[in-house]
Amino acid sequence: MGDVPENQDFGDEVSRLVEQAKDLQDSAAALINRTSREEEALRHRVASLDSRISSLRSSVRNSEQANRLEEELIRAKYILSEGDAAAFLPIKSHGRFLRMFLGPINVRANRKDVQLKVKEEYNHFRDRTAYLFLFFPSLLLMLSSWIWVGCLPALPVQLYQAWLLYLYTGLALRENILRVNGSDIRPWWIKHHYCAMAMALISLTWEIERGPDCSQKQTGVQLFLYWAIMQGFAMILQNRYQRQRLYTRIAMGKAKRMDVVWGETAGVKGQLLFLCPVLFILQGFEAYLGLKLLKTALAGFSSDWQVITCGILLIIMAVGNFANTVQTLVTKSRVKARMRGRNRQDVDQGSDGKSL
Amino acid sequence: MGDVPENQDFGDEVSRLVEQAKDLQDSAAALINRTSREEEALRHRVASLDSRISSLRSSVRNSEQANRLEEELIRAKYILSEGDAAAFLPIKSHGRFLRMFLGPINVRANRKDVQLKVKEEYNHFRDRTAYLFLFFPSLLLMLSSWIWVGCLPALPVQLYQAWLLYLYTGLALRENILRVNGSDIRPWWIKHHYCAMAMALISLTWEIERGPDCSQKQTGVQLFLYWAIMQGFAMILQNRYQRQRLYTRIAMGKAKRMDVVWGETAGVKGQLLFLCPVLFILQGFEAYLGLKLLKTALAGFSSDWQVITCGILLIIMAVGNFANTVQTLVTKSRVKARMRGRNRQDVDQGSDGKSL
Repeated sequence: MGDVPENQDFGDEVSRLVEQAKDLQDSAAALINRTSREEEALRHRVASLDSRISSLRSSVRNSEQANRLEEELIRAKYILSEGDAAAFLPIKSHGRFLRMFLGPINVRANRKDVQLKVKEEYNHFRDRTAYLFLFFPSLLLMLSSWIWVGCLPALPVQLYQAWLLYLYTGLALRENILRVNGSDIRPWWIKHHYCAMAMALISLTWEIERGPDCSQKQTGVQLFLYWAIMQGFAMILQNRYQRQRLYTRIAMGKAKRMDVVWGETAGVKGQLLFLCPVLFILQGFEAYLGLKLLKTALAGFSSDWQVITCGILLIIMAVGNFANTVQTLVTKSRVKARMRGRNRQDVDQGSDGKSL
Repeated sequence: MGDVPENQDFGDEVSRLVEQAKDLQDSAAALINRTSREEEALRHRVASLDSRISSLRSSVRNSEQANRLEEELIRAKYILSEGDAAAFLPIKSHGRFLRMFLGPINVRANRKDVQLKVKEEYNHFRDRTAYLFLFFPSLLLMLSSWIWVGCLPALPVQLYQAWLLYLYTGLALRENILRVNGSDIRPWWIKHHYCAMAMALISLTWEIERGPDCSQKQTGVQLFLYWAIMQGFAMILQNRYQRQRLYTRIAMGKAKRMDVVWGETAGVKGQLLFLCPVLFILQGFEAYLGLKLLKTALAGFSSDWQVITCGILLIIMAVGNFANTVQTLVTKSRVKARMRGRNRQDVDQGSDGKSL
């Protein structure tokens, strides 16, 4: 083999590579050390500024120019929490749920573009699942009326329930990760997905195909499927609305891009007028379904504990969702009123209109 | 209120804080930019050295001093993959499973001490679950013989199955995270946990309390519980053995500390002699259980698809585990033979005995 160099050449090349490996190891250690030191210093500065802003904010409330000063402080806070400095804010606790499934691994991205990629992927995941959310129960109901004549076989329903369990676990994990990465997603929406996980798990153990009174027993399952179709429809509307809102707010320079939007109204007002009634009807139907399940159980028609637990979970979710939707609407109108007030003030004072 | 400063003071303080926030934002952006640039440069150097080592390794095989040169190259590779430079090696793909549950978030820790914390926590998690693995089925079997007289009620068994589903999901997620962090855990062990997840999920839908022939139908469940007790016992032994092996290997400077140990033998030979038969018996019992389930199903005694699927899964796991245990033993003895050969060589050549 003519192209194989002499042994001496190999020996030299090999020792050169070993030396280079040692050099690289030293450079890597130096870089990691220096970076950690600098990051630590920055972390201290960011944390101290953050706490000074917070304490000053509570002091200025009693002063004359309270409004203007607080605006300024909110702006300072915004610079800290929105820009690159946010990477050095105190890290939010990962929470029990993430620790339970993943252990102590850090899921916080330092770079803003990576955080945004995570947020984007979460939106895509929700989009994809919204269509499946619409598709699976529709398919089951269609097959049920065409082929299975009112009585669903266990396997397809259980496959659907297993998919729901995966879906809600995935959503809960992703939302916890978003929270760690600085999104201000409402805690209720995550808890809501814990309830949904529990319900999917319980429904898997539900013996849906027993005895000749099957189709009567399956009323609950059928209602659940109708509700799921409505839910899928609402999810698609919500995703559309929230993404447009997010882009509008980013464009207006007001939104943290990591927000799972729940904030103020602008630009897509028509959609909100359409979305709200849909959400309220859905929540009403959810509560009705829960009560219906409880009634079935209490009438002694089906005494499985699963029926009672699912009924209670549905009612909890309906009430929680309702309370949170109302709260969001109240916050929206409050922010709007405040913005109207501020605009008036700006005109009075001749605001410099500088935006970040 | 006497301690409230003048408005002018507040105004000054507020503008100072805004200025500081802007400064911090600039420092943070600069640090992040510089660090990314430097890391990128280091990543290039590490990747190119890594590929040069690999290509040279295949060339030296035909040379005279093949053994010595390869040793040296392995040492260079070891420096790269074990030290701080490892943080800059090309990132292993996160794999479908992690992406499915977590989205595109990075779970790789840059710092070695964080990686070791993850590994430690994984070991703790396995320890804790091994005891529960022993406890839950024992409790169920005891209660079954004392109170329930041979026929288990559905709820406790289903709670246990839900726990199994959580456990296997947690293990599979953690092991995937370990892999991304440089552990050379065998792919089979992760796949094995996917099978176990599937089995736990399927067993949840298994109607275990139906009709008067309950205790006969529950033979499968009972056998599974016996197997789980053995499995818990074996897990405790394995964890003990692997941790001792890991510490020995770290002390010997040979192990990557991120390894989930499967390598060579030393120091705890007695334990291995005890562990191997236990593992083989367990695998035999696993296969027997799978065959028994299949027989039950094929005899038409219980035609639930769950019985057939669980039977097949158990057999797959038994065969896979057996093949992997044998492979590990073969690797162990091969490494041992090679080390013996190397020691002889070292004595011949008067090795400089330099160890990293």
